Amino acid sequence: MPGVSLTPAEKVDVARELDAAGMHFVEAGSACTSAGEREAIRRVASEGLDATVTSFARGVKADVDHALDCGVDGINLVVPASDKHVETKVGSTRDDVVDRTVELVEYATDHGLWVEVLGEDGSRADLDYLERLLGAGLDAGADRICYCDTVGAADPERTAEVVSRLADLGPTSLHTHDDLGFGVANVHAGLTAGADTVHGTVMGVGERAGNVALEEVAIALARSYDVETVELERLYRLCRTVSEVTGVALPPNKAVCGANAFAHESGIHTDGTLKDGTMYEPYPPETVGRERRLVLGKHAGRAGVEAALAEHDVAVDDDELREVVSRVKDLGDRGKRVTDADLLAITEDVQGRERDRHVELVDLSATSGGNLPTASVRLRVGDAERVASGTGSGPVDAGLEAVRAALAGDGAGDGVSFELDSYHVDAITGGTDAVVTVEVDLSRGDRSVSVSSTDADITRASVVAMVDGLDRLLAAAAEDGADPDAVSVADD
Amino acid sequence: MPGVSLTPAEKVDVARELDAAGMHFVEAGSACTSAGEREAIRRVASEGLDATVTSFARGVKADVDHALDCGVDGINLVVPASDKHVETKVGSTRDDVVDRTVELVEYATDHGLWVEVLGEDGSRADLDYLERLLGAGLDAGADRICYCDTVGAADPERTAEVVSRLADLGPTSLHTHDDLGFGVANVHAGLTAGADTVHGTVMGVGERAGNVALEEVAIALARSYDVETVELERLYRLCRTVSEVTGVALPPNKAVCGANAFAHESGIHTDGTLKDGTMYEPYPPETVGRERRLVLGKHAGRAGVEAALAEHDVAVDDDELREVVSRVKDLGDRGKRVTDADLLAITEDVQGRERDRHVELVDLSATSGGNLPTASVRLRVGDAERVASGTGSGPVDAGLEAVRAALAGDGAGDGVSFELDSYHVDAITGGTDAVVTVEVDLSRGDRSVSVSSTDADITRASVVAMVDGLDRLLAAAAEDGADPDAVSVADD
Repeated sequence: MPGVSLTPAEKVDVARELDAAGMHFVEAGSACTSAGEREAIRRVASEGLDATVTSFARGVKADVDHALDCGVDGINLVVPASDKHVETKVGSTRDDVVDRTVELVEYATDHGLWVEVLGEDGSRADLDYLERLLGAGLDAGADRICYCDTVGAADPERTAEVVSRLADLGPTSLHTHDDLGFGVANVHAGLTAGADTVHGTVMGVGERAGNVALEEVAIALARSYDVETVELERLYRLCRTVSEVTGVALPPNKAVCGANAFAHESGIHTDGTLKDGTMYEPYPPETVGRERRLVLGKHAGRAGVEAALAEHDVAVDDDELREVVSRVKDLGDRGKRVTDADLLAITEDVQGRERDRHVELVDLSATSGGNLPTASVRLRVGDAERVASGTGSGPVDAGLEAVRAALAGDGAGDGVSFELDSYHVDAITGGTDAVVTVEVDLSRGDRSVSVSSTDADITRASVVAMVDGLDRLLAAAAEDGADPDAVSVADD
Repeated sequence: MPGVSLTPAEKVDVARELDAAGMHFVEAGSACTSAGEREAIRRVASEGLDATVTSFARGVKADVDHALDCGVDGINLVVPASDKHVETKVGSTRDDVVDRTVELVEYATDHGLWVEVLGEDGSRADLDYLERLLGAGLDAGADRICYCDTVGAADPERTAEVVSRLADLGPTSLHTHDDLGFGVANVHAGLTAGADTVHGTVMGVGERAGNVALEEVAIALARSYDVETVELERLYRLCRTVSEVTGVALPPNKAVCGANAFAHESGIHTDGTLKDGTMYEPYPPETVGRERRLVLGKHAGRAGVEAALAEHDVAVDDDELREVVSRVKDLGDRGKRVTDADLLAITEDVQGRERDRHVELVDLSATSGGNLPTASVRLRVGDAERVASGTGSGPVDAGLEAVRAALAGDGAGDGVSFELDSYHVDAITGGTDAVVTVEVDLSRGDRSVSVSSTDADITRASVVAMVDGLDRLLAAAAEDGADPDAVSVADD
C-alpha cells in the first residue's frame, strides 16, 4: 500500500496475529524489495508458525534465490499473463513467458519450495493463453495457480468465466482488488466457479483501492455458507494490530472492524436492539471479538436515552425523559456528537438540579515548540484552588501531567487518581486553524465517562475535556458515597 | 451513521452536490426525527433540484404528515416485513401491517406524494408475506417497492431469490448494507434479478458497516456494463464534500475516492504505469475527476525515482540513481513515508552536493491554552536572522503566523510569500504522548513540495515541516534564477 511500510518487528507481530487467527498462508513480503524486507521475511519464516510462509517473487531466478535465502516455505510466483504485461511491461513474448515459468517452477520445486503461479493481469488476459500458461505451471510441478484480477477491472461474470476454466486445471486461488467495488463479489463468483483459496489482506490494505478484506471474506463464508476458515473471534484484534502498525485508521463504517459496525444510534434501531439484540444485527458482535454500542445523537429515541442514563444511575420520569430526548436531538441537529457528559448536563438542567462542580479549570497555560514542553493549570477543587505544572512530550501531554499533579494532593491520602483510557483526535485536514474535537474516555475504578471538547486550540480542547471528565467521575463517586478519594477532594 | 449529524446548511450543500452529479433521488432525511431535521428537509425540498426529493417515513400517519409539512416530492415508507420486526419490534400482526400500509399509501398518494414502500428486514422475511405486503402497496398506488437487506445479512443467492419475485410485482429498488461485505455483490445480484434502482450513500456512510457506496455502484455499472447512471467526473468532489461535513475521513484504500485509489508505489507498478497508464489501472483517474499519483517507498524502483526527481528538475546518472533508490528503500524499510523533501535530501547527499539552507528554524516557542495562543520563531534566512511572533487560533496556527511574519520582510519588496496548500495530521489515538506526523504541501507559483515531520510535540512537528518545505521552495527558485523573491532572501 502506498505510504505504508512495516519494520521487521512489526511484520513479525502481524504474522503472529495472522497465524494465531488460523490463516493457512502468510505472504511475508517480496524478498527482492530490499535488505530490510528480506530481514523481515527471514524473521517471519523462522517464527515456527503453523501457516505456510511465502514470499512474493517475480518471474526471474534472482527473486526465487532471494526467497530461498530467506528460508520461506514457498513462493507466490508472479508471471505476466495479459499481452499488455507480456509485451509492453516485460518486453517478452507469450512463448518465452511460458518457457521461463516452467523453468522457474522446476527450479523452485527442486529446491523444496511450495509454489503458486499467479498470472498477472489474468482477468484481462486472453483466456486460452492464460490456461496454457498456468497449465504449464501445474505440469511443471506447481501446487496451485491463481486467478489475478490485478487491476480490479473484472466483474463477477468475467471472474466466473475465467475461474471455471482454471479450476478444471487444478487447485485455484483468487486474488481480487476493489477498484470497482467488486472485491468481495468476485471472490463470491470465483468460489462458486470452483476456486478453493482466497488471497485477502487485513482491512483490505493494498495497492490502489486495496485487495479484498480478509475479515469480510471470513465472516461472509462463515455466516452465509457455514464455511469455517479462520478464528473469527480474533478478527477484530487482528485488524487493530494492522491499523496500529500501518497507521491506516479503521474506517468507522467498515464491516467487522469499524467503530460503528455494532453501534446503533437512530431511535428506531436502538429501541429495536434493546428489545432483541438480533433486530438490527446480522450476527452477534462477540462473534468477531467485539461488543455492542449504543450512541446518542439527533436520531435518539426514548429507549436509548433511558438506557444510557441508567448506566449512570440516573432515573428520570416520563416528562423529564421527553425533554431530555428533545434536547439530545437539538444537540445532534447542531452537528454535535452527544457524549456521556453532554447527556448528564442536559438531564441536570431538565431536572433543575444545581450541581456543584467538583473540579473546574480556572486557568491554563502551555509552552511548546522548544525542548521541554511545559504546562501549568489552576484548578478549583471543591472550595480550594490548586496550582501545579508539568512537563511532557508536547503541550497536551504536559497539560495532562499538570492536571495529575494538581490532583495528586499533598501525600496525606487526599490525592485523586484517574485513568485516561483513550485520547482521540480526528485527522486534522482543514488547515492550521481547523477546529479540533478531542474525545477522551476517563475512568476511576468501575466508573467510566466519555467527554468531548472542541476548540481551535488543541491544548485547550484536550485539557478541558480531561477536567470535565474528571469532574463527572468525582460527582458520581460522591453520590456513591463509597469513594474516600472523591469525598476528601470534595471536602478539601 | 452513529456520531454523524449534519446541520441544515450542510445537508443543503450535500443535496446540491448530489443533484449536480445527476442523482435521480435524494432522500433528505427523516422528517419525524427533530425540528432541525425538518428544517433541513424543507430547505432541500425548496432548492428546486432536478432530483426527486424524499423523506424517510415510518409506517405511521404522523410521519407522512411531517413529510408533507416539509414539502418533499415523495416518501420512502418503511414498514416491518420480517416477523421479528412485525411482532417483537412493532408488536403488531402481519394482517395489521398490510392494512396499515395500504391506508398510508393511499393517504400519501392522495396528497400527491411519490411513494416507495420498503419492507424492513425484507431479506429475513417470509417471502410469501413480503410479496403480499409489497404487492398490496403497489395495488394501493405506490410507485416502487424496495428490497431491504436492513441488517446486511443476505448473501447474493438470497438476494436474487427475493428480488426476482418482487420485480415480477413492479418496479423494485435495492437497499443493501455491507455487514458481511456483500453490499456491492447484493446490488449486482439484485440488478441481475430484475431490480431497476439502487439506494446508495456517498462513501457508504450509514448504520453499522454502512450502506453500499454509491460511487462504487456508479463506476462498476459504467465500466463493466456500460450503464450510465450519474456524472462520474463529479464523484470525487462529492465524496470530499461528504467527508468534510461528516468528519468521516476518506479511507486511503477506498475505490474512487481514496487517496491511494490512483497512487502507485511498488517498483513493478510504477515502472509499468510509466510505460502505459492503463497497466495497473482499471480506468483512467480523470473518469472520476482525479489524477494519477506516484509515491515513493520501500518498493520504489528506478523508473519511479527518476520520474519523481525529474519533477524537481534534478538529473542523476546511473550510479547515483541506483544509490538513491537504495536509500529511498532504506527509509521505507524503517516505516517512513518518503516525501519530496526526503528524496531531495537523499539525492544531494548521494551527489555530494553541499546545499546551503535558505531558511532554517533556529528557535521556536509557543504558548497555548489561554485566550491568545502566541508563537515566536527565530529563523536564519540566508546569512541573517529574523525574529518574529504571531498569534493564532492555536499553537500551530500561531507558529505559521510567526513564520509568515518573519519572512514578510521590511516592506521594501524583499518579503517571501508562500501558500500552505494542505496541512494534515493523521488521527491521534495512541494517547497524549503519541508521536504525531504532520504532512504539509507548500507552494509558490508553479512549484510545490511535500514535507513531513514527526515529533511528539505537534507544534514543533508542524513548524519544522513548514520551514523545511519553504526552504525547498526557495532553493528551487534560486536555481531557476527567475524568482526575485527568493534571490533577495538568499542575499539578504
